Order: sequence, then structure tokens, then C-alpha cells
Amino acid sequence: MVTARDVARLAGVSQATVSRVLHDHDSVSEDTRARVLLVLAETGYQPNVAARAMRTNRTDTIGLIVDDVTNPFYPELIKALTKELDRAELRMILWNSAGPGESAALQAIDQRLIDGLLFTTATARSAPLASAIRRGAPVVLVNRGVPGLPCDQVDSDNADGAARVAAYFAAAGHRRVGLVGGPESASTARDRMAGYRRGCAEYGLELAEDCVANGDFTHDGGQSAMHTILERTGRNHPTAVFCTNDFSAFGALDAIRTHGLAVPEQVWVSGYDDIAMAAWGAFSLSTVRQQLSDMAQIAVTLLRERIGSPDRALVHHRFRNELVARRTTAHVEPPA
Amino acid sequence: MVTARDVARLAGVSQATVSRVLHDHDSVSEDTRARVLLVLAETGYQPNVAARAMRTNRTDTIGLIVDDVTNPFYPELIKALTKELDRAELRMILWNSAGPGESAALQAIDQRLIDGLLFTTATARSAPLASAIRRGAPVVLVNRGVPGLPCDQVDSDNADGAARVAAYFAAAGHRRVGLVGGPESASTARDRMAGYRRGCAEYGLELAEDCVANGDFTHDGGQSAMHTILERTGRNHPTAVFCTNDFSAFGALDAIRTHGLAVPEQVWVSGYDDIAMAAWGAFSLSTVRQQLSDMAQIAVTLLRERIGSPDRALVHHRFRNELVARRTTAHVEPPA
Repeated sequence: MVTARDVARLAGVSQATVSRVLHDHDSVSEDTRARVLLVLAETGYQPNVAARAMRTNRTDTIGLIVDDVTNPFYPELIKALTKELDRAELRMILWNSAGPGESAALQAIDQRLIDGLLFTTATARSAPLASAIRRGAPVVLVNRGVPGLPCDQVDSDNADGAARVAAYFAAAGHRRVGLVGGPESASTARDRMAGYRRGCAEYGLELAEDCVANGDFTHDGGQSAMHTILERTGRNHPTAVFCTNDFSAFGALDAIRTHGLAVPEQVWVSGYDDIAMAAWGAFSLSTVRQQLSDMAQIAVTLLRERIGSPDRALVHHRFRNELVARRTTAHVEPPA
Repeated sequence: MVTARDVARLAGVSQATVSRVLHDHDSVSEDTRARVLLVLAETGYQPNVAARAMRTNRTDTIGLIVDDVTNPFYPELIKALTKELDRAELRMILWNSAGPGESAALQAIDQRLIDGLLFTTATARSAPLASAIRRGAPVVLVNRGVPGLPCDQVDSDNADGAARVAAYFAAAGHRRVGLVGGPESASTARDRMAGYRRGCAEYGLELAEDCVANGDFTHDGGQSAMHTILERTGRNHPTAVFCTNDFSAFGALDAIRTHGLAVPEQVWVSGYDDIAMAAWGAFSLSTVRQQLSDMAQIAVTLLRERIGSPDRALVHHRFRNELVARRTTAHVEPPA
């Protein structure tokens, strides 16, 4: 790696002279300046970003906090956010919120290693998030919002999307339905569960407590929750089940098959998110689509604005979600 | 965000005094030192990492280059590498090799934003990789190796793993077999294809050219390649097909189902990698397992050693892979 010292030696000048050329000071003769610029070009020397960061107080690097990357929803969100950050010529540091990730991200803010943070898995209990907001660090919540938190937020109307699944089940004549829930710590899971319950009540669907079990947004969690419901209810099983995300719906489908039941003839299944795998032939899962690329675009825009104008008014942008019907529900067109 | 200037103001001292306290200089009275330390504690001030990076020439940050994060193999590799980097108290910056990722990573090396690079998708044609090696930047290739490249490499014996799939098919009495290949640019794909062809020749299996089509390691690519093979061969289809990764095998399974053929009764299918989804009931895919956590551990260790000792001898660590038989092949135990 070429250092400023190497450049100085090759050009036959002092390091201070190299620095003056790099910073466009006048106090260097044209002859010396030309010699230094030639060596800079030949060696491909790049000024130390740390030195630049000290001058500008900007690193052009954004921290991104995600939950389990092996849940395919997050790679799709990462891909959408990466595309927007690339377009804005910003680098990304990725942290996992499991383990020491959140604290490390906060430390990076304090140490000015990054200019701002995108949280995809915010919870009201996250101490690092609360601390970042208290210190006025630029933070945007994307995907999971936290009501009342004083920071920019981009999410979608999860309660409304889930209520529309209930309306769809009711319109098709189902009476006894089920629910594979998600982790209570996630606002997305809570909103989807509440919206579905509200929709069931509104459209006259019976959601008995033996037809409800919580997964944890993973395949295995969904499989185990669905297994519990089918064990409990036997021949009196629900005829349509809403799973709070696609990944747990894939698990629920495996459990239903293990119990010898046919989808959609005996049980309808809907997921949430419309990750790419939901469209695969092996699943053909009916689900509720979140507009990830639009959400990513707004989130990156808001973060850049917040970094530039720390005192700007707060923005909460909420997208509407759309029902996508496939072969796990017998009516392949959702009701209008 | 609290700056050194704020601390100086609150403690009623100069910034130079704050700096002397932070660097443990003797030339500060006990009384002043105590006052500054109190303000530092109260404000949660953290010294600027950029300043530290200039002093130590280390950022404790590692760059990680991956291919498409929406191929679930990479999230599993990222998770394994993250665990090892967390353990070593190193931060990670993630770049996507699609788009400007590789060049941005190289620039980050030149600008001393990161201490070293982990490449998971190295190709001999990658200009940034060649450039990084030429400049002596600490680089470790993990997952995909490039023969002859002068840098540390951690991979697994992909040719041997694929040859064992051929041996398994032959032992079960198959005669006419197929191959869903991967991208020629990836050493993993080339090695698996070559190993499988060698195994077919060695064990007397017929691999006709109409039974070979290339995917691109994606679900849709595998589905389309398998569709091509079944269209071409009609009733004379291969009875066992090796797919060069699990993700394309999932696509091949969808194509086989679309053609009305039963797995494993009419066609056996094997993938490669043993990603978590391969074990799901919906797939129950026979495959070849790579030891990702062991590979990640060795890769991070080698990179740390390389950063500490740039002139250390090169290491190429190659793991052996293991066949995992599931329900897409009728013999659920692989041959000894």
C-alpha cells in the first residue's frame, strides 16, 4: 500500500509538501506541485479516509442493522437498500441485531465511523436505539416502526394487510380459521396479529384459541406452531390459516402435509411479505406483498436528509400492502 | 453527538487538556484530570475512531464481498463469518460483488477504511482482486478459490464431492444421468461439473449432452435448465440429475413436477451445499454438505494472521465434503 511517506520519497519532497499539494495550498511551486501530482498518479495513492473524516466529519458510510440474515426477507431488504445506497454512493456496514450488533453500531456512531443508522428490526426495548435517538444520531427505522419514537420511520400498514386476509377468507365462505403468530417483540408481528383478529371479528370468522399458536418468524417455528394447532384440533381443524410471515408459512405447509391434509382442498394458507420464494412452484403461496424497493428508496432518502438537516421535522411514511393470491388458496384472484 | 470541544467547555478546560487526559499524559493536575474524566463519563464521549485509525493504522473493520445475498447460501456463509468476526471483536463491511461493490472495496483498502478483505466469490478475472493482491493488501478467498493466486484460500473439495454423487447414482443402478450446471465464471461450479463428469466416466454412467444444461446457481436458472433437458429428452429422460447447487436443485424439482414426473420414483435429484432449506419437508433434498462454520473460522483466523504478518507463507486450506441423502433419492443412506 502506498503511503504519503512513499509519495514524498519518490517525489523528493517532504511529507508536509505532499500534504500541501493534496490540500491545494498555494505555497508550493508549480514545478514541485507537478512532480508530486505525477507521483500521486503513478502510484495510485489515495489520501487516508480517516484524515478526511476528521476534516469533514463525514464518512459516507451508513450502518444497517438487520435481524437473522438467514430469514430470506432480510436479504431481499438488504438488496433493495444496497441498491439505493450504491446509487447515493454511500458505503454500508452491516450489523446483526442478535449478539453484540446493536451496541457495536451505537459505538460506531459515537466514534464517527458512520454517518447514520438504518434499523430494520427496531423494538421499543432496544437500549442502543433509544440511546442513539437521545444523542441525536441520524436514525431511520425501516420495516419495523415503533409508535411514538422520535425518529423518521418507514413501514407499511401491516394491520390493514392482515385484516384483508381475513376479509378474503370470509368472502370464500370459511368459518373456522387459524393463526400462526410471530414474536411479540416485533411490531410487524403484533400489528399483523391485531389486524387479523380485528378482521376476523369484523367479517364474522371464528378464531378459537385452540386454532392460534405462535411461531417466531422461522420455518421451524411456523412448522411447530401449525403442528400444535393440528394436534389440538384433530378433525375439527381450521380450514384457513394466516401465518404472520412467508417463512413461517413454508413451515406450516410442511406441517399440514405431515398431517396428511391437502392445501388448498382442506386448508387454505396465507403468508405475509411476498418474498421471492413464495412464487416458486414448490410453494405457490398466497401472501401480502410489501413494496420493499419503494420502502428502501424512501428510507435512504430520509436518512440522507436527516444527516444534512438534523433538526428537520419528523417523517413517518406508511405504505399500503397488496394481497397476492396463489395456489395455497383455492380462489386465485383476491376479492376486489 | 458529544465532541471533544463540548467536553472541554463543560469541564472548563482547553481541548488540548482533554486530549492530554485521553492519552494519559502526566502534565495534567489530578484535580483537572478528575473534572475531565467526570465530564467524559457523564456525556458518554467516545474518542474519534478516525483519529485512532490515523495513529494505529488499524480500523478493526473487515470487508466482506459476497455475490447475490438473495441466494440463501450467502446469508448462511455471512452468518458463519459474522459469528467469527464478532468473536474476534472485528466489525464487518459488506459489499455485493454485483455492481460497483468490488471496486468500492478496493478503494476502502486504499483509503485504510478496512484492514483486510474476505472474498467469497473470487474469480480469476476480478480486476479489483488482482489489484488488491498486487498491492499487498491482506486478502483471504473463502468458498471460491482461484488456483495459483498468491493469497490465502479456504475452500472445499468440490470436485471430489461431485464425483461421490456420481458414485452414489451408479451404486443405485442408474445408467443415464443428467447435469444442471452452474456459471462457468465460478470455480465452485467448474470444479463440481468436472468432478461429476469424471465420476460418471469412472463409474460407467452415461452423461449424454442432451441431458446437460447450465443454470446460473438461481432457482429460476435451475428450473429453466431442467425444463430444457426434459423437453429435449422426452420419455428418454435421465433417471438421476446432479444440480451444482441446492438453489438450482429447488428449481429443477419445480420443473420436474411441472412435467408430471415423480421424485424419486422416476427421477433422482441431488443438490450441493446443504443449505438449511434443503432439509425442509417441502424439498428433503439429497445434497453434499460444505462445513461452513469450520470454513469461516479458518478464514477469519488466516485473515487476522495475514494482517499481523504480511510476509507469512501462503496457506491453502481445503475441506472435504460429505454426501447427505434425503428423500429426493430413493436410497436414504449414502453408500459407505
